[in-house]
Amino acid sequence: LSNKGTRTERELFNKLWEKGYGVMRSPASGGARKHQQPDILFSDGDMLFAVECKSTSKKRVYIEKKEIKDLLEFCKRFGSMALIGLRFDREDWVIIDPGNLVDTGGKNFRADKERAMKKGIDLEKF
Amino acid sequence: LSNKGTRTERELFNKLWEKGYGVMRSPASGGARKHQQPDILFSDGDMLFAVECKSTSKKRVYIEKKEIKDLLEFCKRFGSMALIGLRFDREDWVIIDPGNLVDTGGKNFRADKERAMKKGIDLEKF
Repeated sequence: LSNKGTRTERELFNKLWEKGYGVMRSPASGGARKHQQPDILFSDGDMLFAVECKSTSKKRVYIEKKEIKDLLEFCKRFGSMALIGLRFDREDWVIIDPGNLVDTGGKNFRADKERAMKKGIDLEKF
Repeated sequence: LSNKGTRTERELFNKLWEKGYGVMRSPASGGARKHQQPDILFSDGDMLFAVECKSTSKKRVYIEKKEIKDLLEFCKRFGSMALIGLRFDREDWVIIDPGNLVDTGGKNFRADKERAMKKGIDLEKF
C-alpha cells in the first residue's frame, strides 16, 4: 500500500466507526503474508463484511484475481460478506459487490469508476 | 508489543488458522490508535472471538483495565466474545475468559499462571 492508500483507508475506517459499526484494519498489506487478510473488516454486531480497498487517481483500477480468491477464502472461514471498497480521486469511498467487477480475461479484475459510482452500496442500508 | 510478543502472536495466529478458524491480526499494538482493536480476531464461521494477548516470562501478567474496556467496546460493536490469550514461557498458548482475571484494585487486572492453566478454554470445544 502507498501512503495515500493508508491515509484513505483510515478515512474509510473512521467513516464506518462514526456510523456505529465495529471496524478492524489489517496490518499493512503486502504479498509476504501467508494468509491474506482483507484491508478492513466491519460489522453491525450481526453481519460481518470484509472489504478489499483500492484508491486510484484514474478512472479504472485493477484488482488481482488472486486477491479476490484470498478474500473469498477469508470470507468462507469468517462467514462474512466480501465487498470491494473504491476511492476515486475527488470522490467519497464507494463500496461495491465483487460481482460488479469486470473480468479482463487476464490475471486481473477491473473496476470502472462510472459503473462503480452507480452500483455503490449505501452504507446506511446494511 | 515487543518482538517476542509479535512472534508469539504469530504462533497463535497459525495455530488457530491450522485448526480451520478464520483469523485476523490487528496492526502492531500501540497506544496511539484512536480506536483500539483486539490483537487477534477469529471465527468458526458463526461465532466471533476477540482476543487480547499477553506474553510473559513471569508467573503473572498485568493487563490495564483500559485495555479490557476497549476490548468490550469492540466486542459490543462486533457482537463478538471477549477472550484473553496468555503465553507463559515454556507453555503453549492458553485462552481464558476475562472473568478469570483478578482485580488488583489499581488500574490493572492480573492473570496468574497457575489459575490460567487450570481455567484455560479448550479451542477444540468452540
